[in-house]
Amino acid sequence: MADTKTLKELAEYLGGVVRGDESCRISGLAPLEMAGPDKITFLANPKYAAKVAETGAGAVLMAAGGESHGRNVIEVANPYLAFAKLLNLFHVARPAPLGVMPGASIGENVLLGADISVYPGARIGDNAVIGDGCIIHPGAVIYAGVTIGSNTLVHANAVIRERCRIGSRCVIQPGAVIGSDGFGYAPDGRGYYPIPQIGIVVLEDDVEIGANTCIDRAALETTLIRRGTKLDNLVQIAHNCQIGEDCMIVSQVGISGSSKIGNHVTLAGQVGVAGHLTIGDNVMVGAQSGIPGSLPANAGYSGTPAMPHKDWLKAMAVVPRLPELRKTVTALEKRIAELESQLLQK
Amino acid sequence: MADTKTLKELAEYLGGVVRGDESCRISGLAPLEMAGPDKITFLANPKYAAKVAETGAGAVLMAAGGESHGRNVIEVANPYLAFAKLLNLFHVARPAPLGVMPGASIGENVLLGADISVYPGARIGDNAVIGDGCIIHPGAVIYAGVTIGSNTLVHANAVIRERCRIGSRCVIQPGAVIGSDGFGYAPDGRGYYPIPQIGIVVLEDDVEIGANTCIDRAALETTLIRRGTKLDNLVQIAHNCQIGEDCMIVSQVGISGSSKIGNHVTLAGQVGVAGHLTIGDNVMVGAQSGIPGSLPANAGYSGTPAMPHKDWLKAMAVVPRLPELRKTVTALEKRIAELESQLLQK
Amino acid sequence: MADTKTLKELAEYLGGVVRGDESCRISGLAPLEMAGPDKITFLANPKYAAKVAETGAGAVLMAAGGESHGRNVIEVANPYLAFAKLLNLFHVARPAPLGVMPGASIGENVLLGADISVYPGARIGDNAVIGDGCIIHPGAVIYAGVTIGSNTLVHANAVIRERCRIGSRCVIQPGAVIGSDGFGYAPDGRGYYPIPQIGIVVLEDDVEIGANTCIDRAALETTLIRRGTKLDNLVQIAHNCQIGEDCMIVSQVGISGSSKIGNHVTLAGQVGVAGHLTIGDNVMVGAQSGIPGSLPANAGYSGTPAMPHKDWLKAMAVVPRLPELRKTVTALEKRIAELESQLLQK
Repeated sequence: MADTKTLKELAEYLGGVVRGDESCRISGLAPLEMAGPDKITFLANPKYAAKVAETGAGAVLMAAGGESHGRNVIEVANPYLAFAKLLNLFHVARPAPLGVMPGASIGENVLLGADISVYPGARIGDNAVIGDGCIIHPGAVIYAGVTIGSNTLVHANAVIRERCRIGSRCVIQPGAVIGSDGFGYAPDGRGYYPIPQIGIVVLEDDVEIGANTCIDRAALETTLIRRGTKLDNLVQIAHNCQIGEDCMIVSQVGISGSSKIGNHVTLAGQVGVAGHLTIGDNVMVGAQSGIPGSLPANAGYSGTPAMPHKDWLKAMAVVPRLPELRKTVTALEKRIAELESQLLQK
Repeated sequence: MADTKTLKELAEYLGGVVRGDESCRISGLAPLEMAGPDKITFLANPKYAAKVAETGAGAVLMAAGGESHGRNVIEVANPYLAFAKLLNLFHVARPAPLGVMPGASIGENVLLGADISVYPGARIGDNAVIGDGCIIHPGAVIYAGVTIGSNTLVHANAVIRERCRIGSRCVIQPGAVIGSDGFGYAPDGRGYYPIPQIGIVVLEDDVEIGANTCIDRAALETTLIRRGTKLDNLVQIAHNCQIGEDCMIVSQVGISGSSKIGNHVTLAGQVGVAGHLTIGDNVMVGAQSGIPGSLPANAGYSGTPAMPHKDWLKAMAVVPRLPELRKTVTALEKRIAELESQLLQK
Repeated sequence: MADTKTLKELAEYLGGVVRGDESCRISGLAPLEMAGPDKITFLANPKYAAKVAETGAGAVLMAAGGESHGRNVIEVANPYLAFAKLLNLFHVARPAPLGVMPGASIGENVLLGADISVYPGARIGDNAVIGDGCIIHPGAVIYAGVTIGSNTLVHANAVIRERCRIGSRCVIQPGAVIGSDGFGYAPDGRGYYPIPQIGIVVLEDDVEIGANTCIDRAALETTLIRRGTKLDNLVQIAHNCQIGEDCMIVSQVGISGSSKIGNHVTLAGQVGVAGHLTIGDNVMVGAQSGIPGSLPANAGYSGTPAMPHKDWLKAMAVVPRLPELRKTVTALEKRIAELESQLLQK
């Protein structure tokens, strides 16, 4: 029972309040429908409130004042967030540091922090600095001169190119590439002359980068992803972009060069953003939209080219009826011509 | 001549019937226009039937009753399938197993099957189970606790994260990532708190995964790809998705979290599918379409938002004529106003 | 001062002409606004001509006849190209060759050129040929039988599969996959039988491939990327495609199987191209467009399905007004019916 916690302990951990048996012991988490008496579950969406009456869970995380149906309850401000925190508490054991394992390759003048793990097949280039508590998985390649803060996780086969700077508590999923050359060429009359991309990428703290996502280094200065921003898988960030704090960039989004994205922006899946534009704070862009120009803050947009989201919904409702609309107009033309000729005869 | 086969032998292998010289010896395959007398070719598309008269091939695979133009023929039910099977027979030699080569890294308590090859630079984590006949290419990283069936091929630099389960006869192309963390965060009032993704990915037998494709692990349970389904390159499958049997998911498709795709579904290139929806069996979706809600079975859809494919074709035919349509309507307005004023005067 | 150059030396290097102090010494490059007296800057866009008066730069690259505002000037035909060339001169030091470093894995019968670097964790398969001056970064995997020309750069964790042929002076960004199996399956009545993909990929000289981009090998023959063409990140090129010379294929573009792209073609981000079609020379396609059929040369196209770019702009201007257009048409119908009934009564 070393791994169980009482509801009292959990409530203290979460800053919540127990209604019911404070001494009830919990060993983990489960969905409403599947939870047994040693599990805690959560009610975040009021739509599912009736399911609380039927759950076999030992306790339910819910908002203050929710109907308990006689269950033990921990009241919390944000049940979904509380659930995530308990998942961490019960299910995520920080692994013991393993040091530099045999088969890892460490360059010259590398500075390694305390309590790190560097797996076989990982490579850390010359003059790199790896902070305390970092985990570098097999096949991850960190080029020369890279700096990484503390407790950052670099998954297998991710690549961080020369001189890029990564913050603390970042997570880089497998296969992500940070610091690839920006796509910059000068036409020379025949073909394209590659413009050296001598800038870097900076990820601030708590940034997370999805699998096989690519972030290009700046031509001269910095491609910047600010604190707390999360990028999903297969995202493309071109050179010289600046992405604000706490943004959500969903899978397969592409952002062209030198664009600036504000704070708390959400770009849904497969959105494309043109270059050299600005997107204001708190903007939400619907999936597959194409953004050709700057977007003012605090609004939602959709479509290619993007327009206010509500306008897009209304316009898209007409699209399947366009053939009918066209027929109607043709018929009206005939009727008007008929009217005109009748009137002429009168 | 050890590598040649007679038409009789090939017909037996394919379950077909020879018309012509059964003893004709064949050493390989070639297209209709390029085949010499020791090669067999195929006629799958009736459009090219006339080319049979001019081919230099020693024999032609064709459907029963096809015009042979005096050539040797093997009649088969499905000439394209027969061609693919002969390609395998003549051109694909299963390489001899090489065992665990020097420079491969094997964790603790790993269970390795018979007749495997594990190349230099490959990493197999603790407690993994690798079935008979598997080939693990250089730089492939298999995290702890992964299970792989027999005769599965994992190409270079592919990554399979912890505890995922891969079936038999699967093919994982280079750089594919299976089991990356799902994109799940709980807003905490300021930014986003990462929700631990403690589920797994399961690939059933005969699943093939394209280069740099990403399949996220479930939050709690399983992201599932069923038997026989093929994913092309750069596809994104989000957490908790379920994809049915024998689906074709073409390059750069993205499927959002918790969506369920039926059996025999085809999603063409760059399609985007929203989350928490259901697509019925045998659905076909046209390239670049965006699917905002569930789609009934046995039909074709296109567009963003998607509509029945035929409706989309008709609607798209009107789009380039919209400016003209608008002008027509403006002109009609004027003519009607004119009619109204004339009528008023009468 | 060993790393500085006089304006005279730079003008000779660039084939330009100095106006001002030929002996002025330059140590590097900087943007107009940030350059100090030992830096050279450039004026490419006439929009910024006034900034020349305020720059602190030691000299300005500009077109012949530009207003110098009393600054030292090097006149060149193409200031942007000249800037790129000086970036190379000042900031890109070709690293000294390091040979085959410990921890690299070299197969049997490999032919290695002079002055190469092969980093720890790189793998070169049997019978491969690596030209003079190549750099193979950590974790890059080159399968058996691959041929690479001279001075080609293969970044970390890129994969080049068996027998593919890579030209000279190519750059392969991290995680790119060249020669993955084409997505080819023959329906066998139940599911899909994989068609062996026994062809290769050929990249000619001066081709550059973006991070995590995928180029599939041909089914039987060759997927071909011609001289000088640049592919951005996360691009998909399917089997049997042929891409011409000096094309720009921007991020997240997907080109389906067997399509032929001419010379000097630009496909903007997220464009999708169907299979078995031809795109003529000098075509430009706007971002996110979908190309269902062949496109004639020397023109611009946009939209899904694509149309001439100007037509698309006009059509898209109508889309947000479709609901209004529909209301107008409904109102016109009523007015016409009213007119008809009035006329009937007269």
